[in-house]
Amino acid sequence: MRKPNIAVLGATGVVGRNISKIITELGVEFNEIKFLSSAKSAGSVYEFQGEKYIVEEAKPESFDGVNIVLASAGATTSKIFAHEIVKRGGVLVDNSSAFRMEHDVPLVIAGVNDEDLRLHKGIIANPNCSTSQLMLVLKPLHEKWGIKRLIVSTYQAVSGAGLKAINELRADTVSKLNGEKFVNECFKKPISFNVIPQIDVFTDNGYTKEEMKVVNEAKKILHLPENLPISCTAARVPVFNGHSEAVDIEFEREVTSDEVREVLRSAYGVEVMDNPQNYDYPTTRDADGVNPVFVGRIRKNLAFDNGISLWCVADNLRIGAALNTVRICKKVIEMGLY
Amino acid sequence: MRKPNIAVLGATGVVGRNISKIITELGVEFNEIKFLSSAKSAGSVYEFQGEKYIVEEAKPESFDGVNIVLASAGATTSKIFAHEIVKRGGVLVDNSSAFRMEHDVPLVIAGVNDEDLRLHKGIIANPNCSTSQLMLVLKPLHEKWGIKRLIVSTYQAVSGAGLKAINELRADTVSKLNGEKFVNECFKKPISFNVIPQIDVFTDNGYTKEEMKVVNEAKKILHLPENLPISCTAARVPVFNGHSEAVDIEFEREVTSDEVREVLRSAYGVEVMDNPQNYDYPTTRDADGVNPVFVGRIRKNLAFDNGISLWCVADNLRIGAALNTVRICKKVIEMGLY
Repeated sequence: MRKPNIAVLGATGVVGRNISKIITELGVEFNEIKFLSSAKSAGSVYEFQGEKYIVEEAKPESFDGVNIVLASAGATTSKIFAHEIVKRGGVLVDNSSAFRMEHDVPLVIAGVNDEDLRLHKGIIANPNCSTSQLMLVLKPLHEKWGIKRLIVSTYQAVSGAGLKAINELRADTVSKLNGEKFVNECFKKPISFNVIPQIDVFTDNGYTKEEMKVVNEAKKILHLPENLPISCTAARVPVFNGHSEAVDIEFEREVTSDEVREVLRSAYGVEVMDNPQNYDYPTTRDADGVNPVFVGRIRKNLAFDNGISLWCVADNLRIGAALNTVRICKKVIEMGLY
Repeated sequence: MRKPNIAVLGATGVVGRNISKIITELGVEFNEIKFLSSAKSAGSVYEFQGEKYIVEEAKPESFDGVNIVLASAGATTSKIFAHEIVKRGGVLVDNSSAFRMEHDVPLVIAGVNDEDLRLHKGIIANPNCSTSQLMLVLKPLHEKWGIKRLIVSTYQAVSGAGLKAINELRADTVSKLNGEKFVNECFKKPISFNVIPQIDVFTDNGYTKEEMKVVNEAKKILHLPENLPISCTAARVPVFNGHSEAVDIEFEREVTSDEVREVLRSAYGVEVMDNPQNYDYPTTRDADGVNPVFVGRIRKNLAFDNGISLWCVADNLRIGAALNTVRICKKVIEMGLY
């Protein structure tokens, strides 16, 4: 099979850097690769697989001859370039929210709904981070027992808000420890030693966009009915990297926690850490820098008849963004979809 | 009415210090007051209302002539002294978990179920912190619409684990920022920049004791049926003080978020902060050092028919411990129950 020409768009951002790292980790084979950014970061030197590349400013003609674009440059940039990429015959694997809910754009988690990739018309969307880790856990459970109702509360790291947010958590923390004043810029409230119940902007129903992404994207990825009841509360915690989620699921059919543990032990991309008496359960830090979605605290839920509660943790920059983007790229290559 | 002789047991602990502070804030009138501790802290000087007291080692005879004991010295200490206090005619307002679920011990949140105080036989229990703040919010809603199902996810501060835990969060954070190793003692996992899905030990059903406290204490305080479905996930976040809770409630009767907001605006001990478009919602830091339970993010829950989701934040050392202890003490005095 011919090897593709690949471009990484938004290469200098926190997710872009992870994409480049994971291209190497997963051994994605390519013919040529280029690294694109905004005018601001263009010209900088980019180390990749032992070679030095100059980051180029993204322009329509940058995509001439490019087969697959891995983009993590925000919704506005993706909207600007999507048409330019597609009309040149390229496939855009987009990490932004720009196209996720469009009917003719597959929203894909590699290993969950790969077959949806076949429906692409040039654009493939990568789900939001908090949805992604959850889908890898829920897919095999849904197949077996049928999800009837879902309630999620998230504990999200600042890395999801970019490099500036990571630096802001550090600076705010140092200031607070020294008893100095600190003015937050990325966050609307102090982030050090605090919990902020807002991620992204608010929608008319009182949920945030982040929360509604979980609600809507889960339905699209798992092919659930539109009216399936799902609720989410998304909160930002003072953690550098790694999202945690408390998940309460009601199933159609009877289920035990042992059965769930068994199914998840052989699930793609999931690692079970669940021997709580020995303090064996995932904390956020366990996921930092690695690929699995870790699941623990699996137990019979006391509020639902056929209910299960669990705790899942993942590196949001990986599974929620860069890792899934590169995994999709690999699938697109394997399935010959470019 | 005769003024009581009061003893603060566990006076040098983090909750004990808050109890003393709040006795002054709420203007509790007493005849005499004494401050008791373990042998280790006995003999230290205790400043209170401008005077200096010597902390005494708690012994059975310490309670001679004491009318009301405000105790926050752990379950073991409470169990040792409860009988000694009661047989001397004193009333123990106990902050530990020792007696909370005993049938003849009222479990009381002042302002929620004060009438239960009349049933006391010498011991009155103060609920667990995560339950307490929730009850002040749920009581008026339950009265109006009837709770049918409840799911809670907590974001709990380290102060609930005592002064050592507060110091450990600080030291661990400094080490992490400096790239140094740190060995945790209070917590079984690193607490800085991390989320730990365990508070207290595990029970046989896979829930922690902390989670089962919410389940069981809520039923006792609100006089809910034993089989009412409640679930909780309790997690520790790197926050010094203040617990946050994501709460999903299904009610018996139809309800709107506007109605909930209106009811909570006039509820005892509750303050509504709920204009999210203007970033008006409570973060943990808003509650630190003050008395109200702050509620925001009130919205129609998308997973239940008559459902409401909300976010509630409180100073766990106050409403979850010291404030409620002193409020109960005040009620006991007002109602002549000592």
